[in-house]
Amino acid sequence: MSTNNTQIPYKIYLEEKEMPRQWYNVRAHMKNKPAPLLNPATLQPMTARELGQVFCDELVKQELDDSNPYIDIPVEIVDFYKMYRPSPLVRAYCLEKKLQTPAKIYYKFEGNNTSGSHKLNSAIAQAYYAKKQGLKGVTTETGAGQWGTALSMACSYFDLDCKVYMVKVSYEQKPFRREVMRTYGASVTPSPSETTEVGRRILAEHPGTTGSLGCAISEAVETATSMEGYRYVLGSVLNQVLLHQSVIGLETKTALDKYGIVPDIIIGCAGGGSNLGGLISPFMGEKLRGERDYQIIAVEPASCPSFTRGRYAYDYCDTGRVCPLSKMYTLGSGFIPSANHAGGLRYHGMSSTLSQLYDDGLMEARSVEQTAVFQAAEQFARIEGILPAPESAHAIRVAIDEAMKCKETGETKTIVFGLTGTGYFDMVAYEKYNNGEMTDYIPTEADLEAGFAGLPKIL
Amino acid sequence: MSTNNTQIPYKIYLEEKEMPRQWYNVRAHMKNKPAPLLNPATLQPMTARELGQVFCDELVKQELDDSNPYIDIPVEIVDFYKMYRPSPLVRAYCLEKKLQTPAKIYYKFEGNNTSGSHKLNSAIAQAYYAKKQGLKGVTTETGAGQWGTALSMACSYFDLDCKVYMVKVSYEQKPFRREVMRTYGASVTPSPSETTEVGRRILAEHPGTTGSLGCAISEAVETATSMEGYRYVLGSVLNQVLLHQSVIGLETKTALDKYGIVPDIIIGCAGGGSNLGGLISPFMGEKLRGERDYQIIAVEPASCPSFTRGRYAYDYCDTGRVCPLSKMYTLGSGFIPSANHAGGLRYHGMSSTLSQLYDDGLMEARSVEQTAVFQAAEQFARIEGILPAPESAHAIRVAIDEAMKCKETGETKTIVFGLTGTGYFDMVAYEKYNNGEMTDYIPTEADLEAGFAGLPKIL
Repeated sequence: MSTNNTQIPYKIYLEEKEMPRQWYNVRAHMKNKPAPLLNPATLQPMTARELGQVFCDELVKQELDDSNPYIDIPVEIVDFYKMYRPSPLVRAYCLEKKLQTPAKIYYKFEGNNTSGSHKLNSAIAQAYYAKKQGLKGVTTETGAGQWGTALSMACSYFDLDCKVYMVKVSYEQKPFRREVMRTYGASVTPSPSETTEVGRRILAEHPGTTGSLGCAISEAVETATSMEGYRYVLGSVLNQVLLHQSVIGLETKTALDKYGIVPDIIIGCAGGGSNLGGLISPFMGEKLRGERDYQIIAVEPASCPSFTRGRYAYDYCDTGRVCPLSKMYTLGSGFIPSANHAGGLRYHGMSSTLSQLYDDGLMEARSVEQTAVFQAAEQFARIEGILPAPESAHAIRVAIDEAMKCKETGETKTIVFGLTGTGYFDMVAYEKYNNGEMTDYIPTEADLEAGFAGLPKIL
Repeated sequence: MSTNNTQIPYKIYLEEKEMPRQWYNVRAHMKNKPAPLLNPATLQPMTARELGQVFCDELVKQELDDSNPYIDIPVEIVDFYKMYRPSPLVRAYCLEKKLQTPAKIYYKFEGNNTSGSHKLNSAIAQAYYAKKQGLKGVTTETGAGQWGTALSMACSYFDLDCKVYMVKVSYEQKPFRREVMRTYGASVTPSPSETTEVGRRILAEHPGTTGSLGCAISEAVETATSMEGYRYVLGSVLNQVLLHQSVIGLETKTALDKYGIVPDIIIGCAGGGSNLGGLISPFMGEKLRGERDYQIIAVEPASCPSFTRGRYAYDYCDTGRVCPLSKMYTLGSGFIPSANHAGGLRYHGMSSTLSQLYDDGLMEARSVEQTAVFQAAEQFARIEGILPAPESAHAIRVAIDEAMKCKETGETKTIVFGLTGTGYFDMVAYEKYNNGEMTDYIPTEADLEAGFAGLPKIL
């Protein structure tokens, strides 16, 4: 596509005044809206009142709003954003040169804050609304630890109590993540734990379990709903999270527009969908409104392939089945990635918004194996100077693959990908890769069938 | 001082074209030049030829040049700088508000790159000149690990071999630092080691030693000088390093000038002096030329107080006494900070340039205890959202102290400090602080006398 190539700097930083003042709600422009959350007892759509027992009131409104395309960002949140945003859109000149590709590669880098990722964009919003509602604190789960760190930072800023359930395998692989969260005043519990009923039940059923996001969610929700003045918050999957994360895509689009750059391909890693949903939102908006077309690619681990091998169905969001049901691409709420899986992106399901867009053919998905992902991570680190999070490296893998295709065909495509964060707390996984001890595991059909067997019997 | 306060953003980013194209060599404007390095055998000033056996030729030139004020930055280095620079100059609005101080606080943040600190500024320059000279590789030492990481990144970019001797106590406290360096292709050896003659000698004399920078330097120098096609590089102390680090101060000054801001106080942490020397250089230049006055404060650990309690004398730069002698503020080359000292800034001496400036009364120095440093680090992290390196937190401590003085006096001073890096690999120290287990240790007079006893008998 046409690109005005003159004097594009290595890093495009927007000015403060160019930062978005409204989030973009892509659901407003979707013809087929994402399916509503269902009450697991009645199988009826969750009402605002029901959701309000788990989530903050203002966030419930955002969760249910599929008609307003723009929602004002409160000034307190804009001010916090100014501490670490706008994030740079980087032209990967060095990578292009090394690959000898005619493709033009850009990445939106969200790692320049202490949470190490984009997660802070939604954490600060959720903490703000909790504070505004007069709550004492919030509970949450965390997998790779980036969401928990982000929420700890946000809660510390607004002086809220923060209780984090951390997937046990990550808790053990990332002891220093725990200390960052504690430095920000949060309490961190490995999940499953003995502190909740659902945790005790899961431990009794699966004594050796290394935990899962679905299980940690159950514990966090139980804790929030059983304590006065607490609510549960979630770092991905939900509509509200994608709404807050639209700040990534909006900044990206403004930066590209400033230089007259039109991307051909937009790539993001996808676990629950928070980064991908945020990055693509304004581009998907143009696509939905018929204004422009883009190739949009979700990248997921081959070991947890909800888009590429999952089913589009109503499923439990958590292992303990205490949460509402969501219609999404899912591997079943009992699915747990094999123990050799090193990074995040280990959630069994996917954002219902992205699931609907994918089902409507508006985006595609690819799965990649982790040794190939770490190979891309190492290559990227050495050339572009940033050590990526394993999650982010999924997007790097496919960006490099697409750039190499351009080298073969001679096409000068413009590729934009989301570099969601840094890998400074993932050195156990990098060590495994450095030592040549990393392996791949692709779930067998039997593995998947076992997961699907747990799906509830709903359309 | 006068400050045009209108519309100063949270973060001032220079444009690419505003980045410095020349380093500033403060020695050119010093009336009293720093004393020359001496050959330990002859006690005569080291010649370029002698220095060339240890250092790259171009770097030797820079080391000895005390007359040219500006030295061109090669375009290859400028291009690399563009990947992670300019670094932001941040207005600490949130910290000011929380402290309720009338002071205006700015910090130059050098942590937004994978080495986690300013060290990359000199690493890339030294690797470039090594490559240009056709060398196979370089050797170095690292303490806290930031320099080693920076050099690994730089060597990987220019495809040079990189051998790092890491102070044993840091190697053990920071296993993940090692993996970052390995990811960038470096080999990392805990020091003292059995791989060198000097290492074996030190191990024999002090079997339980946790190592020191001075000792790791000896090993790195021995390795470099005993291998064909290798040279030694150093991340601090040397004139050439301060020269490269002037990019910090030059960017800071350009950013301040852009908004008509004139600082009253400039604060930097000081171990060997690389960050402080770089940050203050253009301001010190104005001071030396009689154009403007600034209060300049070096902050060092009370446990390793070379400025505040050391002697200004010729001393060995390394424990093994294989390096040239340098005239500097020093605690003696045998001085090792007590084992409870958690952060970096553990070098026994100080840059000879800064030593001369300090001796001439052009800057002052303060020492601070580590529990007070971590208290400032935690406070800063929670308010400004950046988890600082313990080293950087020394400057934060004094910046907060000065801002609180302004609160008492009502003065609206403008304070600029250097935030050299992030603490993501220092979580063992943070954990100690979080658990209330951190202690302070101030060397006794006897401790210091033991160090001074090892000073060579030269003026």
